[in-house]
Amino acid sequence: MQAITNAEIISVGTELLLGEIVDTNSAFLAGELARVGIDTYWAVRVGDNAGRLESALEAAIARSDLVILTGGLGPTDDDLTREAIAAVTGETPEIDPGLEEWLRGRFAGFGRDMPERNLKQAWLIPSAVALPNPAGTAPGWLVRLNRDGRQVLVAALPGPPRELHQMWHNHLLPALELTGSELFRRTFRTVGIGESHLADLLSSQLAASNPSVATYAKRDGVHVRVAAKADRKSRAAELAAPVLAQVEQLLDGYVWGTDEDELQDLITTRLAERGQTLATAEGPTGGLLMETLTAAPEAEAAYLGGVLAWAAQAMGILGMPRPAEQGHSGEKLAGLMAEAARETFTADFGLATFAFGPSGRPGEQADVAEVFIALTGSSQPAVRRIELPREDAAWQRERIMIAALHLTWSQLRS
Amino acid sequence: MQAITNAEIISVGTELLLGEIVDTNSAFLAGELARVGIDTYWAVRVGDNAGRLESALEAAIARSDLVILTGGLGPTDDDLTREAIAAVTGETPEIDPGLEEWLRGRFAGFGRDMPERNLKQAWLIPSAVALPNPAGTAPGWLVRLNRDGRQVLVAALPGPPRELHQMWHNHLLPALELTGSELFRRTFRTVGIGESHLADLLSSQLAASNPSVATYAKRDGVHVRVAAKADRKSRAAELAAPVLAQVEQLLDGYVWGTDEDELQDLITTRLAERGQTLATAEGPTGGLLMETLTAAPEAEAAYLGGVLAWAAQAMGILGMPRPAEQGHSGEKLAGLMAEAARETFTADFGLATFAFGPSGRPGEQADVAEVFIALTGSSQPAVRRIELPREDAAWQRERIMIAALHLTWSQLRS
Repeated sequence: MQAITNAEIISVGTELLLGEIVDTNSAFLAGELARVGIDTYWAVRVGDNAGRLESALEAAIARSDLVILTGGLGPTDDDLTREAIAAVTGETPEIDPGLEEWLRGRFAGFGRDMPERNLKQAWLIPSAVALPNPAGTAPGWLVRLNRDGRQVLVAALPGPPRELHQMWHNHLLPALELTGSELFRRTFRTVGIGESHLADLLSSQLAASNPSVATYAKRDGVHVRVAAKADRKSRAAELAAPVLAQVEQLLDGYVWGTDEDELQDLITTRLAERGQTLATAEGPTGGLLMETLTAAPEAEAAYLGGVLAWAAQAMGILGMPRPAEQGHSGEKLAGLMAEAARETFTADFGLATFAFGPSGRPGEQADVAEVFIALTGSSQPAVRRIELPREDAAWQRERIMIAALHLTWSQLRS
Repeated sequence: MQAITNAEIISVGTELLLGEIVDTNSAFLAGELARVGIDTYWAVRVGDNAGRLESALEAAIARSDLVILTGGLGPTDDDLTREAIAAVTGETPEIDPGLEEWLRGRFAGFGRDMPERNLKQAWLIPSAVALPNPAGTAPGWLVRLNRDGRQVLVAALPGPPRELHQMWHNHLLPALELTGSELFRRTFRTVGIGESHLADLLSSQLAASNPSVATYAKRDGVHVRVAAKADRKSRAAELAAPVLAQVEQLLDGYVWGTDEDELQDLITTRLAERGQTLATAEGPTGGLLMETLTAAPEAEAAYLGGVLAWAAQAMGILGMPRPAEQGHSGEKLAGLMAEAARETFTADFGLATFAFGPSGRPGEQADVAEVFIALTGSSQPAVRRIELPREDAAWQRERIMIAALHLTWSQLRS
């Protein structure tokens, strides 16, 4: 197989064209393809319509090395991806006995008979191999075509993101890693510096193209990415090395993580390494801290639990004074709340988010929400006061959570 | 202008093909177009590349009545949407004096000189009219073309969602509402019945096209949508009425909500109407229930707070027996946990999710996770045992949360 350098993604499904579902599969795939050095030139969404789907597939095969279809592999008459590939290749689908056996076994495992319409999920064409789907009933297809002397790879993956992710990682990605050019990529995750200041700081590096340097404003701070492309991974890394060193030096003091690092993962992993634990008490974050920390690696060992105490009434369960009664400052109350969480769960560290107001949510009158974050533990308590412009509530909860995680990580890493 | 019945959306920008940004503009536009009865047949994403952009635009003009481009209207050399439209129409862009004056005035208003590169944002071609952009520096373009006797409308809108939304509502939508047809749409949200059983139940309705009936498997159950199209909204509703009545009758007992209803919204709204309150204690959902309920409307009045108690140790704060010590059943322990949450927060209802295992997360050995959900309150406690195939943890947390919300809503609505 010749090298695959560019790809096209076809997302199949009328629901994607009604505006009710945002097509996240194609963003996932484009990101993954970029990581293995394959550029996505086109991404097309098309409804459950045989003619339009075939025409999209024809156009893709004519211009792209790799075509990935997502969706349209279900059992109903509206699921037309298999039919379209068969039509475009001129081949006839037939039931594959191995797939049929697997499919009937899967239904039997649920204690159900297989509806006969599901049998089309056991179809194959001669030039296709099936990609296993342990999470669903739709196997994928991988088809190698020859068009006008060009080799084109066509893959069909199921639409449900969970099934698609598994199939990508376990089957399609390993097949693709054998081809193509190689990309070296390193991301520095920064905090405490804005995107325009970074643009000034890195102006000469940002102008170059291979290695390239780019900045991305993300929810946890600005990311700076250094990327280089070459025929071999080791060559790409060599190419990137001098720029990488410059960027690293210029960003000194701003970097909190690299590549895929997430604040909650760094925190729970560091705690587990040290045999320490964390507990939380939340006001204005409304449970988001708990949900995020629970999903992190090592959470079972490092994160003991939390309390959502945004109603003034609920403060009682942490044995705290009611804010209105005591006249304490927000900093003081956040510290008390963190300490109460630490004691309640017998943890090494207590982390709290607090805001005044009847509910403990960011106060609803002012133009700016005032929020307090505290971390208590082995050393001096760390407390921060932050002000947030009044935007939508979900955005606000996320900003406060990120600030709380930054505070925790800044204490743990030092 | 003849009636516009179908549309194509072209999202322009290399960043959309790197997987780092999800293209929400096209979902927004597709939803809006559907509301005025225009079907989106194609949605294409293409990078900042002149050749590929022109080729996408040519293909769109050849097959669609309305082509909406988003993005690529900025001032840099990478912003190529204006150039592509000019190339495809064979017209030459010139600086429009009125737009130039507006643009320079806009920069002056910020106390800044206009960089000369921004002058291209004042370009127009003879067949284009400018669409005002009060929120940015990029006016849109609206171009009427004649291709092989067909009339095609091409609109270019800016990429930043806020600018795009304003321009859509204030300028493009009013232009389109003069044409096209109107859509009536009703969604029934079901629980307790799978998609293939619904397909059997509704087989005769699913075969029709106007009104059309379609099923969608969603995270909170299968949705059934009835849609009808006519020249007037009232006529579309009349057309839908008989099928709507049939579907409603066939789905009797399975429907938990309609249209945009969300479980957490129905729950908190119903509680607030009754002056009642809810508290939660979570094991395997890991804080997701709290986060979801906090974000619901009326949460401040109806949802008092929660405890994350997935570590066996944390059970102590709810005054519960440790599961291993007591030999209680999962049903019993979930009920105790719900009751403890209710009492701790002095709420009317207590909702709990529980699983055995050292962490209270779904046990990590077995192939199937066993989870218990309980709701206690004014009447008999309601307890459910559910089994989940062992999949990724995020998916599992979400399934358990949805089951807990379904249990709560089934009790509250009766």
